[in-house]
Amino acid sequence: QVGHSKTRCQCLNGMVNHVKPVLIEKLEVYTSSHSCQNIEIIVTLKNGKGMKCLNPEAPFAKKTIEKIMKNQRSVQ
Amino acid sequence: QVGHSKTRCQCLNGMVNHVKPVLIEKLEVYTSSHSCQNIEIIVTLKNGKGMKCLNPEAPFAKKTIEKIMKNQRSVQ
Repeated sequence: QVGHSKTRCQCLNGMVNHVKPVLIEKLEVYTSSHSCQNIEIIVTLKNGKGMKCLNPEAPFAKKTIEKIMKNQRSVQ
Repeated sequence: QVGHSKTRCQCLNGMVNHVKPVLIEKLEVYTSSHSCQNIEIIVTLKNGKGMKCLNPEAPFAKKTIEKIMKNQRSVQ
């Protein structure tokens, strides 16, 4: 899903609107830049289950980030 | 600032509570895991200005992420 192309955008091969927060090991947010105009959110899944592009437009994307941030308060 | 240590936490050498969103090229959120209990937010600055650990407890952290997400709507 994380593809390679002339521009340096990484999420040209389709995005998902939803990923279970508990499955997320890492979340990368790339801001728009000269090499790629889009904001891109790349999620690395736990247990080596690969990476997925998360649609930044999906309301879920913001909720996922908020959920991850909230979890950290319950952990500490 | 992003240090190395026995645990695989990356933000043990101090964190900042604030980074100007416009300076941010990439933002990585590491969820808590067996190798590092803390949620860690690592910001890569534009123009090769290095990386900083952002304090996930700081209200600013959530606002920054929200701001980045909002910017993407004005870009497209």
